Amino acid sequence: MTGSLPTDAIRELDPPARLLMGPGPANAHPRVLRAMSVGLLGQFDPEFTEYMNETMALYRQVFCTKNQQTLMIDGSARSAIEAAMVSLLEPGDKVLVASFGRFGLLLTEIAERCEAEVILLDAPWGTVVPLETIEDAVRQHRPKLVATVHGDTSTTMLQPLDGLGAICRRYDALSFVDATASISGMALETDAWDLDVVSSGLQKCLGGPPGIAPITISDRAAECIRGRRHVERGLGNAAGNGRRIASNYFDLAMIMEYWSPERLNHHTESTTLIYAARECARLVLEEGLAARFARHQTASRAMASGLQAMGLTLYGDATHRMANVTGIEIPGGVDGEAVRKSLRQDFEIEIGTSFGPLKGRIWRIGVMGYNCQKHKVLITLNALETVLRQAGFKLPSGAGPDAALAVYRSVEAA
Amino acid sequence: MTGSLPTDAIRELDPPARLLMGPGPANAHPRVLRAMSVGLLGQFDPEFTEYMNETMALYRQVFCTKNQQTLMIDGSARSAIEAAMVSLLEPGDKVLVASFGRFGLLLTEIAERCEAEVILLDAPWGTVVPLETIEDAVRQHRPKLVATVHGDTSTTMLQPLDGLGAICRRYDALSFVDATASISGMALETDAWDLDVVSSGLQKCLGGPPGIAPITISDRAAECIRGRRHVERGLGNAAGNGRRIASNYFDLAMIMEYWSPERLNHHTESTTLIYAARECARLVLEEGLAARFARHQTASRAMASGLQAMGLTLYGDATHRMANVTGIEIPGGVDGEAVRKSLRQDFEIEIGTSFGPLKGRIWRIGVMGYNCQKHKVLITLNALETVLRQAGFKLPSGAGPDAALAVYRSVEAA
Repeated sequence: MTGSLPTDAIRELDPPARLLMGPGPANAHPRVLRAMSVGLLGQFDPEFTEYMNETMALYRQVFCTKNQQTLMIDGSARSAIEAAMVSLLEPGDKVLVASFGRFGLLLTEIAERCEAEVILLDAPWGTVVPLETIEDAVRQHRPKLVATVHGDTSTTMLQPLDGLGAICRRYDALSFVDATASISGMALETDAWDLDVVSSGLQKCLGGPPGIAPITISDRAAECIRGRRHVERGLGNAAGNGRRIASNYFDLAMIMEYWSPERLNHHTESTTLIYAARECARLVLEEGLAARFARHQTASRAMASGLQAMGLTLYGDATHRMANVTGIEIPGGVDGEAVRKSLRQDFEIEIGTSFGPLKGRIWRIGVMGYNCQKHKVLITLNALETVLRQAGFKLPSGAGPDAALAVYRSVEAA
Repeated sequence: MTGSLPTDAIRELDPPARLLMGPGPANAHPRVLRAMSVGLLGQFDPEFTEYMNETMALYRQVFCTKNQQTLMIDGSARSAIEAAMVSLLEPGDKVLVASFGRFGLLLTEIAERCEAEVILLDAPWGTVVPLETIEDAVRQHRPKLVATVHGDTSTTMLQPLDGLGAICRRYDALSFVDATASISGMALETDAWDLDVVSSGLQKCLGGPPGIAPITISDRAAECIRGRRHVERGLGNAAGNGRRIASNYFDLAMIMEYWSPERLNHHTESTTLIYAARECARLVLEEGLAARFARHQTASRAMASGLQAMGLTLYGDATHRMANVTGIEIPGGVDGEAVRKSLRQDFEIEIGTSFGPLKGRIWRIGVMGYNCQKHKVLITLNALETVLRQAGFKLPSGAGPDAALAVYRSVEAA
C-alpha cells in the first residue's frame, strides 16, 4: 500500500520538441494546447453545456452541414466509426465497404464485429474505387449501408465522394464516410454530397490532439438510430424500441440525447478534449475553409515538387493524391528505417512508413493543420536531403527546397 | 463551403472559476492542467512509448498490483467497464452483478449488451451487498464473472471488497470492480484482494480530467482475453483464436498488444490524456497512498460533522459511507434545486443531486483529489449555511464550519 516514488525515476514531462511530419498526429496549434490547460467545469453546468452547443454549431460549419446531430464521440477516430456502425447495423444487415487501404479494411473489421454481412469492394492500394463500381455493387447487393474512407493515409489516396450520396439515395442505402484524415484540409461537403454519417478526428488537418472524434449524422440516419432507443437501467424505465444497440458506450441514441436539451446522463464528457475540439474549429473558421484548403494544396504541391526534384518517386495514382500526406517510394538500396531514425534523432523530425504490403516500401510525409507551413516543408526537405546523401543516395544538391520554394513563390506572386 | 465565423459569437474559452464539489468531475490539479498543454509526440516515437511504459509502472503502484496489463482505455470511465466486459464475456456467459446503486445497474446494462446472462443481486440503495450474500449466489449460479462497484457515487456507499476475490477463486469465477470513484481516495488492494480486473477514471480522487480510464488486468483474466485474439485485417493475417470480441475499439487482446513491446497498431493514443494520467499518478505517489487516504478520511469526517452540526441528516448506512462523496437528505420544505442554483450562481460552487429514486431527494457533496483541502470544506459549509438560511431552513449559526474545524484541529494536534 505504500506509494513512495523515487521522484528522479519518473520525471516531469519534458518531451523533445519534435516536428511531427508523419501521417498524424501532427503538432497541435499552440492555441489548442493552451485551451487544454483551462480549468474544468461540471458536465451539466450551464456554461459547459453551452460550450457543447457551441461545439456543435462550429462543427456544422466544419462538416458543411445543417445536421442537428453534429457532436463528439469520446475516443480516438475509430471510436466514432464503431459508434456509427454499431448504432446503425443489426446482425445480418448488408454493408458495402469501398476500400482502398488499411482504413477501408478497418471498416470491414468493425462491420463484421457488428455481425453485419460485409461486401468488400477492394481497389488495389494506390488507387481509389470508381463511383461506377460502387453503383454497380449497390445495385446488385442492395446494402443497408455503404461505407468508405475519404482520405486513407495508409496509401495517401483520396476517394472521390461527390456522387456517392446520390447513389445511396437512389437505392435507399445509408452512407458512411471516415473523413479523419481529410477534414478541414480538403473539401468535404456533407450536405451537398448527401452523405449520411461522416466521422473524423482532431489530430490531422484540424491541428488538435487525438482522443476525441467529431461526427455528423443526417436526420434519416438519426431516425434509423432512434428506432433502437433504449434508456439504461438506473435512469428510466426499461422499455425501448427495436433491437438494443450492442454497445452502451457507443449507443448513439443515448449519446444524441446527451447532446440534446434533454441532457440524458450517459458518459462523463471529456471536458478538456471538448475545449480542444472547440478551439480547433474556431481556428478553422477564423481562417475560412477555402483558405485552409488552399494552404494545404499549396504545401502539398511544394512538397511533391521538392521530393520529385530530389529524384524521388511519389507513390500511387497522381490524380487522387491527398493534399496532406504524400507517399514516397523508398529508393532501392536505401534503408528506409535508418532514414527515419536519422531524421528523428538528428533533426527531431518524424516521418512515417506504412502498413501491411507497404510497410518498408514507402515513406509518408504529412503536411497538415498547424504544420502546414512553408518553413516546415522546407526544413523537412533540407533534412531529408542531408540524410539521403549520408545514406549514399545520389541527388542534385539543393534541388528539393529550391523546387518547393518555386511553388510558394508562384503562389505568393499570384 | 465558406467558413467565416463572427469572432464575437463564439469566443475564447473563459469558464467561471467554479469550485466543483459535486460527485465529480472535481477540479483538476494545476500540475495536471499544465501537463495537458505540453506538445504532442507521435504515438510510436520512442519517447512516447516510454511515457506509456512509465504510466503503466505508475498505475501498478496506484492499483497496488504487479499486473503487467495495467494500461489506459481511451474514453470515459464506462469505456473501461465495457472493454472488460466485452473482452471477457461471450453470449450466454453468466455474470453475477452485485449492485447497490446506479452504477451497479450500469454493469448489468453493459453485460446484457454483451448478451451475457445477468444475475442481479440488488441491495437497497443506501446499503451495500454483504459478502456472504455474494458467496451464496456464486455458489448457486456459478457465474463466469462477478462484477461490482467499489464506491457507487449515486448512493455514496462503499462496497467491502476484501474477500470478494477469494470467493471468486473458490468457485473459479473472475472478478471485476469499477473503482472509478474510489481510486487513490480509499484503500483498493487489487492483488491483496485477488481482484482480476479493476477499472477507474481520473476525474474523482485522482485529480485529473475525465476522458481516459486506467484499468488493470490479472494474468488469468489476460489469458482468458488472449483466448479470443484476432488481429485486424490490414495488419496481419485473419486467423485468430476463439470467438472474436464483439468490439474492435474495446478489444483488450489488441489493446494489450498495443501497450506491449509489440506495439501492434490499434487506435491512435490520446497523447494529452496520457500526459494527464501520468501526472495524476506522479502526484498520488509523491504524496503516498496512505497519506492520501488519510487526507480524504479527515475531510470526509470534517464535512460530515459540519453537515450534522447544521442539523442535516446524512444519507445511507453510516458504516459504509465513501470518504469522498457525502449524501445529504434534502430537508422537508427546502427546494433542493434552488439551493444548488444559489450555490452555483452566488458562490460559484457546484454540488450534485442524484439519479433515479434519489433524484431531488439527496444532495451529494464531493471532497476529493485536488479539492480535498481544508479551506474548500470550510468554504462549502459556510456557503451552504448562507443559502439554507436564505431558504428559510433553521440552523445554528456557524455550527457547520466550527464542527469541521474541530475535526481538523484534532487531527492536526495528533
